[in-house]
Amino acid sequence: MRLSRTFLPLLKETPKEAEIVSHRLMLRAGMIRQQSAGIYSWLPMGMTVLTKIADIVREEQNRAGAQEILMPTIQSADLWRESGRYDAYGPEMLRIVDRHQRDMLYGPTNEEMVTDIFRTHVRSYRALPMNLYHIQWKFRDEVRPRFGVMRGREFLMKDAYSFDVDKEAARHSYQRMFVAYLRTFHRLGLTAIPMRADTGPIGGDLSHEFIILASTGESQVYCHKDMLEKAVPPADLDFMSDLTPIVDDWTSLYAATDEMHDEAAFAAIPADKQVEARGIEVGHIFYFGTKYSAPMGANVAGPDGSEAPVHMGSYGVGVSRLVGAVIEACHDEAGIIWPESIAPWDIALVNLKPGDAATDAMVDRLEALFESLGKTVLVDDTDQRPGAKFAAMDLIGLPWQVIVGPRGAKSGEVEVKRRATGERHTMPEENLIPFLAENSLS
Amino acid sequence: MRLSRTFLPLLKETPKEAEIVSHRLMLRAGMIRQQSAGIYSWLPMGMTVLTKIADIVREEQNRAGAQEILMPTIQSADLWRESGRYDAYGPEMLRIVDRHQRDMLYGPTNEEMVTDIFRTHVRSYRALPMNLYHIQWKFRDEVRPRFGVMRGREFLMKDAYSFDVDKEAARHSYQRMFVAYLRTFHRLGLTAIPMRADTGPIGGDLSHEFIILASTGESQVYCHKDMLEKAVPPADLDFMSDLTPIVDDWTSLYAATDEMHDEAAFAAIPADKQVEARGIEVGHIFYFGTKYSAPMGANVAGPDGSEAPVHMGSYGVGVSRLVGAVIEACHDEAGIIWPESIAPWDIALVNLKPGDAATDAMVDRLEALFESLGKTVLVDDTDQRPGAKFAAMDLIGLPWQVIVGPRGAKSGEVEVKRRATGERHTMPEENLIPFLAENSLS
Repeated sequence: MRLSRTFLPLLKETPKEAEIVSHRLMLRAGMIRQQSAGIYSWLPMGMTVLTKIADIVREEQNRAGAQEILMPTIQSADLWRESGRYDAYGPEMLRIVDRHQRDMLYGPTNEEMVTDIFRTHVRSYRALPMNLYHIQWKFRDEVRPRFGVMRGREFLMKDAYSFDVDKEAARHSYQRMFVAYLRTFHRLGLTAIPMRADTGPIGGDLSHEFIILASTGESQVYCHKDMLEKAVPPADLDFMSDLTPIVDDWTSLYAATDEMHDEAAFAAIPADKQVEARGIEVGHIFYFGTKYSAPMGANVAGPDGSEAPVHMGSYGVGVSRLVGAVIEACHDEAGIIWPESIAPWDIALVNLKPGDAATDAMVDRLEALFESLGKTVLVDDTDQRPGAKFAAMDLIGLPWQVIVGPRGAKSGEVEVKRRATGERHTMPEENLIPFLAENSLS
Repeated sequence: MRLSRTFLPLLKETPKEAEIVSHRLMLRAGMIRQQSAGIYSWLPMGMTVLTKIADIVREEQNRAGAQEILMPTIQSADLWRESGRYDAYGPEMLRIVDRHQRDMLYGPTNEEMVTDIFRTHVRSYRALPMNLYHIQWKFRDEVRPRFGVMRGREFLMKDAYSFDVDKEAARHSYQRMFVAYLRTFHRLGLTAIPMRADTGPIGGDLSHEFIILASTGESQVYCHKDMLEKAVPPADLDFMSDLTPIVDDWTSLYAATDEMHDEAAFAAIPADKQVEARGIEVGHIFYFGTKYSAPMGANVAGPDGSEAPVHMGSYGVGVSRLVGAVIEACHDEAGIIWPESIAPWDIALVNLKPGDAATDAMVDRLEALFESLGKTVLVDDTDQRPGAKFAAMDLIGLPWQVIVGPRGAKSGEVEVKRRATGERHTMPEENLIPFLAENSLS
């Protein structure tokens, strides 16, 4: 992809309205444009990252046995009257009246609708366990949207819903999502820590928030330092096996948000293992039993033929929020530092002198080589001066920068810069691919 | 994928509310569930087809040089006041008031918003040509939604918008989309005919509808028979080259909808080449010049430094509508007949006697073999009787059925049925892959 033909509108100035670094950097890097308060368009680079994150979330949901569906954004108020939430939900719900004067709403979440789908089609325990998820835009009419995509009004969420015959079976469904979340956030380049969350009137231990640490995080969190070093389960894990040992291992050490913090338990951790930090919530999993199935009549017949409300859980990941959260966790003074798995392009190929025949030839050669290896490349073919090019590439934060100038083109050498560390190496052109391969360009 | 673990809720009865065959089949095959009038959930099989269609549309947009963005569903009324359309648009526009009493709306289309993005970031002809597209849910509050996803209220659309410095450049952008559409519909297994459409006050020849023929089509269409046999341009076409010869070739023969029909011109076609048929619109491309850029102040400086409104065109594909349209074009009495490119699974692998060790072993072996070749497989491992299984597989319409029973498992033979033709072949297990490869399972 040629930068001169790419719609990547970088801003020179720091936008005043942006209060946090991810918002500033997303605006400066031309990833988003605000259309109304808390409502954004995603420009090409932002859209690519959003899609890559959604794809990883989807792959891990599928791996754990969840099935993808897609529920609409506009819902009938009648469904929400069945659960009692239509009147209970506050002004965050965007209420709409259609041309036939029917009460509708823009879904802020989908428990009612997915319960309706289930009760329409499933009657027997033999269809269980079942987990249905979708990745869809939601709307919550926040009174004061802010922090860019971190707290927008229209936002993209993955929400999954599990259905089981009883609480014990539901625990296994919960554990599958617990493990899927560990794998998902790890693949996104994040260290996410599951922290026990409030279960409200449902009670029990089946509610966890997944929190990443970032100095700009919205809430205070506490955990045992070893939580930061745990290895996540492998891709070939059998999700139908007993996952209790994995979940027990991941929940045995102390980890809590402010809300659930237990000062005494935290003090019992060795002092050099106590971590106090700021955190950002990126996922939440929750078993809520028959809260919706009972009032909405979503019953299944058990092996003995007797009918009972199905046991449910819900599992959310803030997909658009993650774009901001990743930047909060991965940036420096100069700009974004994308994890390789979700970088908008793998490599920035900087042509220092477009129009110079030898330089152009080397750039074309390298671009073709990278693409033949399945790598995506952004070629800076603009006529900006080198300093501006370097600043722009640092700002957009691709993992690797390969810099080609007339002198190198003559001597057959390229310069490589690793964005995360700033380390630079000059090497013969033919050493480039082995070097990148060795240095973990997967 | 095991059918016993797949949420594929087939209906035995034909739903009364469905007036056309695609709506009936989509409900019977468990692809969708209506949530409110004209608003649908997409169940797993429906979601898979919808995603495959969107992916092909996206690939061809990218190939033609369009760049993907994503605009939000909720828009501010103020933008539409700038173009004058807020008051002009009828009750099809879903108008919304947010908690701060601001007028919002659910976007029925995006000319205003994309023009706003453009004017914010682009000032010079040097950034042109530019084409931005997104694949996003739209809402049109039809007074009487019907025909399932063919005329829903919430629907998925790909809409692209081109920006050029003058009309001649805009013609080339238009031609790129014209060719992209030929390729897109062909890859979806459809014969789509470009038909000249009304340009209203804009005038000129730059407006075409893409129509597929289906006996249940919504409108009467007329064309020269040779239009049905034309070869579409290849994947390696250079979209920046002069596309006029291709477009001229595709527009030289008579093809018109009822609205634009010219009885005399049609009568001039040799009688054996006259085709009168019913058609379904699946795409529309349109050059509209400065209709939005002029009132909204989207100007660019030309090479001579003088500013002028940018020339625009829009290019729509009804992505969710296409799911229904494909079924209208591809079905028989027994059910759907998916084109291979968008089939929800490539192969139905029918186990006639689950529990029989030899049969199960052969099914497992074939499933692993197909998957190792990158094919997706739906294994019918249910305990239904054979007749019910065959009817179900014909209904959901995967391109190939591979049937394994105890007798064949013993003798090492399988039966293969091609859904489109009904032809059946019994062959030794080891001949299966060569047979499928030869018979165009790509």
